[in-house]
Amino acid sequence: MKIQYILEILGTAFFAISGALMAIEKSKSDWFGVTFIGFITAIGGGSLRDILLGSYPLVWIGNVDFMYAIFVGIVLTKVFFKTLISIRNKLFIFDTLGIAMFTIIGTEKAISLGVDPVISAIMGMFSAVMGGVLRDVLINEVPIIFRKEIYATACLSGAILYLILEHFSIDRTFNFLISVALIFTVRTIAVKYNLSLPRFDNKE
Amino acid sequence: MKIQYILEILGTAFFAISGALMAIEKSKSDWFGVTFIGFITAIGGGSLRDILLGSYPLVWIGNVDFMYAIFVGIVLTKVFFKTLISIRNKLFIFDTLGIAMFTIIGTEKAISLGVDPVISAIMGMFSAVMGGVLRDVLINEVPIIFRKEIYATACLSGAILYLILEHFSIDRTFNFLISVALIFTVRTIAVKYNLSLPRFDNKE
Amino acid sequence: MKIQYILEILGTAFFAISGALMAIEKSKSDWFGVTFIGFITAIGGGSLRDILLGSYPLVWIGNVDFMYAIFVGIVLTKVFFKTLISIRNKLFIFDTLGIAMFTIIGTEKAISLGVDPVISAIMGMFSAVMGGVLRDVLINEVPIIFRKEIYATACLSGAILYLILEHFSIDRTFNFLISVALIFTVRTIAVKYNLSLPRFDNKE
Repeated sequence: MKIQYILEILGTAFFAISGALMAIEKSKSDWFGVTFIGFITAIGGGSLRDILLGSYPLVWIGNVDFMYAIFVGIVLTKVFFKTLISIRNKLFIFDTLGIAMFTIIGTEKAISLGVDPVISAIMGMFSAVMGGVLRDVLINEVPIIFRKEIYATACLSGAILYLILEHFSIDRTFNFLISVALIFTVRTIAVKYNLSLPRFDNKE
Repeated sequence: MKIQYILEILGTAFFAISGALMAIEKSKSDWFGVTFIGFITAIGGGSLRDILLGSYPLVWIGNVDFMYAIFVGIVLTKVFFKTLISIRNKLFIFDTLGIAMFTIIGTEKAISLGVDPVISAIMGMFSAVMGGVLRDVLINEVPIIFRKEIYATACLSGAILYLILEHFSIDRTFNFLISVALIFTVRTIAVKYNLSLPRFDNKE
Repeated sequence: MKIQYILEILGTAFFAISGALMAIEKSKSDWFGVTFIGFITAIGGGSLRDILLGSYPLVWIGNVDFMYAIFVGIVLTKVFFKTLISIRNKLFIFDTLGIAMFTIIGTEKAISLGVDPVISAIMGMFSAVMGGVLRDVLINEVPIIFRKEIYATACLSGAILYLILEHFSIDRTFNFLISVALIFTVRTIAVKYNLSLPRFDNKE
């Protein structure tokens, strides 16, 4: 899966960029702090998944390419800082592709380790969103996924679709693409129409 | 130990309920956020213990029943929300039974893995309280156990009693019950008489 | 390595003291909370490193001496509280020696487990600074290393020097001492001249 590997590397770099941009905006971090938060955003979700599953070595520890991708992402953030801020809304498409892809990769990994499908879907979602949760905890904010437009639930929907199609032995590549597409579509519609999940207690 | 298994499942569901109630009260979380925080509250302590001990698979990953218990807890929270809020003080008894039981189960697990008793007592206490610590970090509060009436120290007292009695080869079931009872008693007295540990620096 | 072992124990006790002092100053924690935060500060960095590397048992779980060192540190903090606060600036030297030593020990450990040098340097830095990051998250502050005078970057500089000298097969004890000295020097100069890394976005 050469293409998938390239996409994972690109996705990791992109997550580092988006984490760094958030760190710059929300905290008074220096160079190191911004890099650190970009790094945690990029590797946090996959690391947590692998630690919970006891799957060693962690992806970025076994393969230093992910670390280089993060460094490149941080340098690009520095060099193209103004441009990135100005096109921020357009970066949405990359973020959405990133979470979609990492969700399905994480779900697949859990399933391949023999984990129950219900828990595999959660592991897929964790892979995609927990880097952002750790980022928000570090910059001392309530995690944005707890109140933002449908985000983690879009990931869950794709993970569930993947598991259903996998149960019916659908071709893996086709399944991967269609599940990623579902996450992308749900998330895009949610943002376009500003759809959020209702508050739990039904208050405004 | 069929009864213990049922109690563990019930305890997990209860922790999810109490975490969800806290999330509703203290944050502006949507459905997903509340569920997520309930989930972390329920599995956080045991997961951290198992990760620190390197004991895989984590309990809730090896057995999907715990996940179903959490889902049921969240649905019950939704359906009986008003009732639960109104009887909140009476839920105290379940919370206290929960932390008592999880403390001793965690202590036992660490001991059975050959861990030093001093560290096993800490692992037992972690099992009971770290879910709540993670919950508080996620909703951006200083963990309540750092300043609340005697809570984690009640857990530690029970864990230490358990280890002492175990050292003298007291029957396991009897030991379990009496250690749980100690935690329950210490915590109940602390809440009834509003007892807190003194501040470290003796200021008011 | 008897001397190194004694230094590690002393360093752990010192980290517990500095974590407890910070907890007293920045939070309204009781006895338990202060002890807990001191404990996390002392074991957090090494634990995270070992969990990321999958290296079990964690140092403080395999050897209860570290726990005793932490307890002694907390008791000393209680007994000599006023003295410690008054000489706080002078404690700086111990903190700096501590992070320097733990950086190199962590780097060595990662290398000995066959980890890529780039990642080993990060693991060394994590060993030294992540206890403090966890401490800051628990007391609900943005981690101080994100904005303080050169701190984690001093650790990284020493780790990189160690790896370069190790590459050229320099004697291990000499390498250890010179790399620790570099971290100590960089950090001391940074504090003396109040040097910080620039902000990422070049704003004031």
